[in-house]
Amino acid sequence: MNNLSAVLRAPGDVRIESCPVPAPAPGEVLVHVRAVGICGSDVHYYEHGRIGEYVLDGPMVIGHEAAGTIVEAGSEVDSERVGETVALEPGIPCRNCRQCLTGRYNLCPDVVFFATPPVDGATSTYVTIDACFAHRAPAGLSFEQAAMAEPVSVGVWAVRTARISSGDRVLVTGAGPIGLYAAQVARASGADRVLVTDYNEFRLRIARSLGLDVTTADQVDEPDFDALLECSGAPAALTEGLKHLAPAARAVLVGMGSDEVPVDVGLLQRKELSITGTFRYANTYPAALRLIANGAVNVSAAITHRFDIQQTEDALTLSRRDRESLKAVVVPPG
Amino acid sequence: MNNLSAVLRAPGDVRIESCPVPAPAPGEVLVHVRAVGICGSDVHYYEHGRIGEYVLDGPMVIGHEAAGTIVEAGSEVDSERVGETVALEPGIPCRNCRQCLTGRYNLCPDVVFFATPPVDGATSTYVTIDACFAHRAPAGLSFEQAAMAEPVSVGVWAVRTARISSGDRVLVTGAGPIGLYAAQVARASGADRVLVTDYNEFRLRIARSLGLDVTTADQVDEPDFDALLECSGAPAALTEGLKHLAPAARAVLVGMGSDEVPVDVGLLQRKELSITGTFRYANTYPAALRLIANGAVNVSAAITHRFDIQQTEDALTLSRRDRESLKAVVVPPG
Amino acid sequence: MNNLSAVLRAPGDVRIESCPVPAPAPGEVLVHVRAVGICGSDVHYYEHGRIGEYVLDGPMVIGHEAAGTIVEAGSEVDSERVGETVALEPGIPCRNCRQCLTGRYNLCPDVVFFATPPVDGATSTYVTIDACFAHRAPAGLSFEQAAMAEPVSVGVWAVRTARISSGDRVLVTGAGPIGLYAAQVARASGADRVLVTDYNEFRLRIARSLGLDVTTADQVDEPDFDALLECSGAPAALTEGLKHLAPAARAVLVGMGSDEVPVDVGLLQRKELSITGTFRYANTYPAALRLIANGAVNVSAAITHRFDIQQTEDALTLSRRDRESLKAVVVPPG
Amino acid sequence: MNNLSAVLRAPGDVRIESCPVPAPAPGEVLVHVRAVGICGSDVHYYEHGRIGEYVLDGPMVIGHEAAGTIVEAGSEVDSERVGETVALEPGIPCRNCRQCLTGRYNLCPDVVFFATPPVDGATSTYVTIDACFAHRAPAGLSFEQAAMAEPVSVGVWAVRTARISSGDRVLVTGAGPIGLYAAQVARASGADRVLVTDYNEFRLRIARSLGLDVTTADQVDEPDFDALLECSGAPAALTEGLKHLAPAARAVLVGMGSDEVPVDVGLLQRKELSITGTFRYANTYPAALRLIANGAVNVSAAITHRFDIQQTEDALTLSRRDRESLKAVVVPPG
Repeated sequence: MNNLSAVLRAPGDVRIESCPVPAPAPGEVLVHVRAVGICGSDVHYYEHGRIGEYVLDGPMVIGHEAAGTIVEAGSEVDSERVGETVALEPGIPCRNCRQCLTGRYNLCPDVVFFATPPVDGATSTYVTIDACFAHRAPAGLSFEQAAMAEPVSVGVWAVRTARISSGDRVLVTGAGPIGLYAAQVARASGADRVLVTDYNEFRLRIARSLGLDVTTADQVDEPDFDALLECSGAPAALTEGLKHLAPAARAVLVGMGSDEVPVDVGLLQRKELSITGTFRYANTYPAALRLIANGAVNVSAAITHRFDIQQTEDALTLSRRDRESLKAVVVPPG
Repeated sequence: MNNLSAVLRAPGDVRIESCPVPAPAPGEVLVHVRAVGICGSDVHYYEHGRIGEYVLDGPMVIGHEAAGTIVEAGSEVDSERVGETVALEPGIPCRNCRQCLTGRYNLCPDVVFFATPPVDGATSTYVTIDACFAHRAPAGLSFEQAAMAEPVSVGVWAVRTARISSGDRVLVTGAGPIGLYAAQVARASGADRVLVTDYNEFRLRIARSLGLDVTTADQVDEPDFDALLECSGAPAALTEGLKHLAPAARAVLVGMGSDEVPVDVGLLQRKELSITGTFRYANTYPAALRLIANGAVNVSAAITHRFDIQQTEDALTLSRRDRESLKAVVVPPG
Repeated sequence: MNNLSAVLRAPGDVRIESCPVPAPAPGEVLVHVRAVGICGSDVHYYEHGRIGEYVLDGPMVIGHEAAGTIVEAGSEVDSERVGETVALEPGIPCRNCRQCLTGRYNLCPDVVFFATPPVDGATSTYVTIDACFAHRAPAGLSFEQAAMAEPVSVGVWAVRTARISSGDRVLVTGAGPIGLYAAQVARASGADRVLVTDYNEFRLRIARSLGLDVTTADQVDEPDFDALLECSGAPAALTEGLKHLAPAARAVLVGMGSDEVPVDVGLLQRKELSITGTFRYANTYPAALRLIANGAVNVSAAITHRFDIQQTEDALTLSRRDRESLKAVVVPPG
Repeated sequence: MNNLSAVLRAPGDVRIESCPVPAPAPGEVLVHVRAVGICGSDVHYYEHGRIGEYVLDGPMVIGHEAAGTIVEAGSEVDSERVGETVALEPGIPCRNCRQCLTGRYNLCPDVVFFATPPVDGATSTYVTIDACFAHRAPAGLSFEQAAMAEPVSVGVWAVRTARISSGDRVLVTGAGPIGLYAAQVARASGADRVLVTDYNEFRLRIARSLGLDVTTADQVDEPDFDALLECSGAPAALTEGLKHLAPAARAVLVGMGSDEVPVDVGLLQRKELSITGTFRYANTYPAALRLIANGAVNVSAAITHRFDIQQTEDALTLSRRDRESLKAVVVPPG
């Protein structure tokens, strides 16, 4: 078997190389990867070679939004799972620390996460993964849809953190893939009004096509949202968003990129608002897969481009070249 | 103005009488009632003259699921509200006791509730009500739909109590109006699978027409529901339902009628299940009205019969005469 | 009866005047006030004539931390309550709005709050108050202790908002009366380690005498607090405090005074921290009174000075004159 | 090294045998056990050879409430831990299933639990255990105190499940070791009033000596407890206890032994009460150890007898012989 992989050797230098096919350790499965979503973090490593403290200092396979088919079960794994379509949860936590044991394994200090240096990602024909993080996809899901369980999980986690329930009014700032998916999860969780904002007219058009209400980012003129899902990473989105919240509303930070943001703490106090950060997700894959399968979250509308693995570089430079692009999916050989 | 009202004078004796039009006290509004749903409790008072400790010992207007139009505002109420379509929340709590001040006003020991002896109900052409319990209906709602905010509220409360969130699997036992509405609220709150059970094939047919999964009550063969909404009041529904729950699942009691039910406490312990009773609802009307307005809860499918106020007795005897009936709505003169 | 009251006529101008004794309206009681704590907000009005949007534009009685004896019951109030020692909850909400009905009456936009212009406060010999906000003090409590149910309530609310439970480690920044009371409530709620910080050595000494751990504000060198109760109002206390929090920890804003504070949102995200504002309190008086009565919260240690009503000006200027002062209590004539 | 162990070979047949000293696997530590509490379940296996589905069908070391000293660290474990005093959490879950990953590892279907057939327990001189379930005891704790982290954990879990917070009134039925510890945890979590009931006067005397309020089980005459911790396992304790609860109160099942209990579901509904089962505990050891260390939970008062390992049979028959006994601790050779 040939294990073609998209290897980032240095900023701007991604190559398609043939790597050894890994063998599943006890408790692991070997997966034939059939679709990998390209995330902003992949693009960031490609462009800058680092994200914060994480520095690329050797070759690394990119990609962490993957789905495929189980082709081999390691020891201690039910061999009946061979043939299953699975979505791969990319972070494997230690399962022994306080965070893991309390169910917040996303905060495990020893998590091993696909495509976070120096850990190889999943844009490979074959990868191994712990069996319990290879989540069976409901019948009928395409590989591409299953791969989107990753960004949908971010949305599920944000909605849970915001404790959104039936009748809530939700403001989603940022209409990238994460914002579009989070908005749909919010709606599927009973939110009555979901307003999505962005400055990019193409993105707002897609949001509108999903039946979401939209407006330009600086044109929000309603008060009294019960929750803010900040998915843009723009400091102003938080600062301004807080002004549109109802008493006791919750702001949840999803988008990355800001450092210090000036926060009007007097406003937090007068209205008893909260701001909560989120980091990846925990225990979301089953819910995410179901939401995709039952149609509550349309993941396809945000997938604007598809490439085969040989074109990975095109996928990584897409957003630079095409303002009318959102999510790209890379397809290893079938 | 003539205030025709459906007055229950004794068991089996309901009369349409002309009553004085009440004047709104300070803080109240006068409402021209345009639709009143008939509830099982109305039928019970008609048939038996009592429910538990509540005994009919004088004439009482029946009905507590009402909607209409504000025709007069009492002092201290914004006169701009005249003309509003409103759903009437039937229980007016004291707002001074511990239960009220903590937001659980449904448990107020001094609540005054429509059509609970000796308080008159709302099957009248005109009723007064505290302005803050006359909830403005979203544009486009019919009176009949707005009236259904009452039973939908029961569903919203059950779903909140069960803490249903995205991806949950929910078992709803009992496909009467409450069960049908609760099941739809659960689905709108992110439940992935909602299975509705009953013995009555007509009811299951309506459930199926709403896109819900259904089965005969004793034919459930799936384990691992995350929540049970017991809407039938049948002891066996609870006893059996518990067996189908996943670890840490929540059973919520909605249906009335049981006294002592034998509970397998060993099962509760081994799986850490909970059973929680619900009593009416609190702070649900805005959410219920929005869920009806945005189509998440189809209330009409359960409304099988409509009567004008002169035919109230037909509405009260309907379930006895016609097994293919669910909810009846009575319409005072327009 | 002579109703001596401490009336603030203008900044720096407080006079002891004889006012009419008010008559209790229906649902109210008349209280003979026996102790009133002086709060920083009273001092602020005395010095500046305003707090934010609240501007003194007419004479106003100061003080909102009061206790006394019921001497008369209005209609609709149980006359047996005459003679009760009561703590007065100073904010009377409308009880009709969404905030009130959901149990968050502290966020009621129409609340009427003692000594918030233009509402008169409680530094009077006699005041009236809604019976349900005159909370019966447990047997044995002094008037002074009962009056402290107000600042202790602030602590109870902070602890509830922070969801402190057994074994938690809590950092309390600011050792004024609020911080000292909040720290004790946290300890009584199961917190294992409570560390109190301040720059004022006198305050730290009092904290130490209460059995609390203390350190100078910029000398905290432990990580992994589960909760931060920010009681100083200093921007740096929040900014720095966040750095000492464990994953998933909660920061709660109690101290007033800051406007914009730069917040490291990347830190909030990496550790999934939350920041929540608090505004006064709701449904805390019974718990606060019990905590004082059972000795869990020693309120006396923070009461450094006592004045009779004629000396109210001394109470208001105390903090300017004496660095070794904390809470002053004013006593109307007995 | 000689590994003396208390081996239950058949009902009524416990022998002290010399077993091989186990070697710690990777991730494990070897612990020199210094104290083991005898639990009712040990006695039950000794007397009946089974508990429900768990049947003794081969020799099994008894005991699961253990503490000792780490004497060897397996590979992958920090060797600096050798010498640590540790409390042993007796259930080792799989850490891969849904229950484990969501933080409810006590509900793991594949948990391996000390002294639950066929798994050997900890009444041995040496046992191995996963390093992360060997919890470091705070300085100053005796082995006996550390061993009690197990039953105290049951109390911590019950109190968390009951969501007890400051000012709550708590009824604890059953004054065995679990009840006595749970009652103290409740008090340390802010409960204002904790009333403990039993029929056994000796137990009530111990409860009283701990400063708890007590009464004979059928003499409770107060309403309005916010929580019931049912620690007796007697059906009547639940049935009767529910009658003494306040609206929205929580009943938590801790004591084992009942099968079907008739529950007044009408009462659950009218007051919106909940009943929740508990099964062991999760993530409680750190909190339990701190509560013991800071004096909030006095574990010694319930330890009425101590035996060395040769006298294990005396420990197992103690409750039969001596009505004035509670918890026995067995001490392996030091």
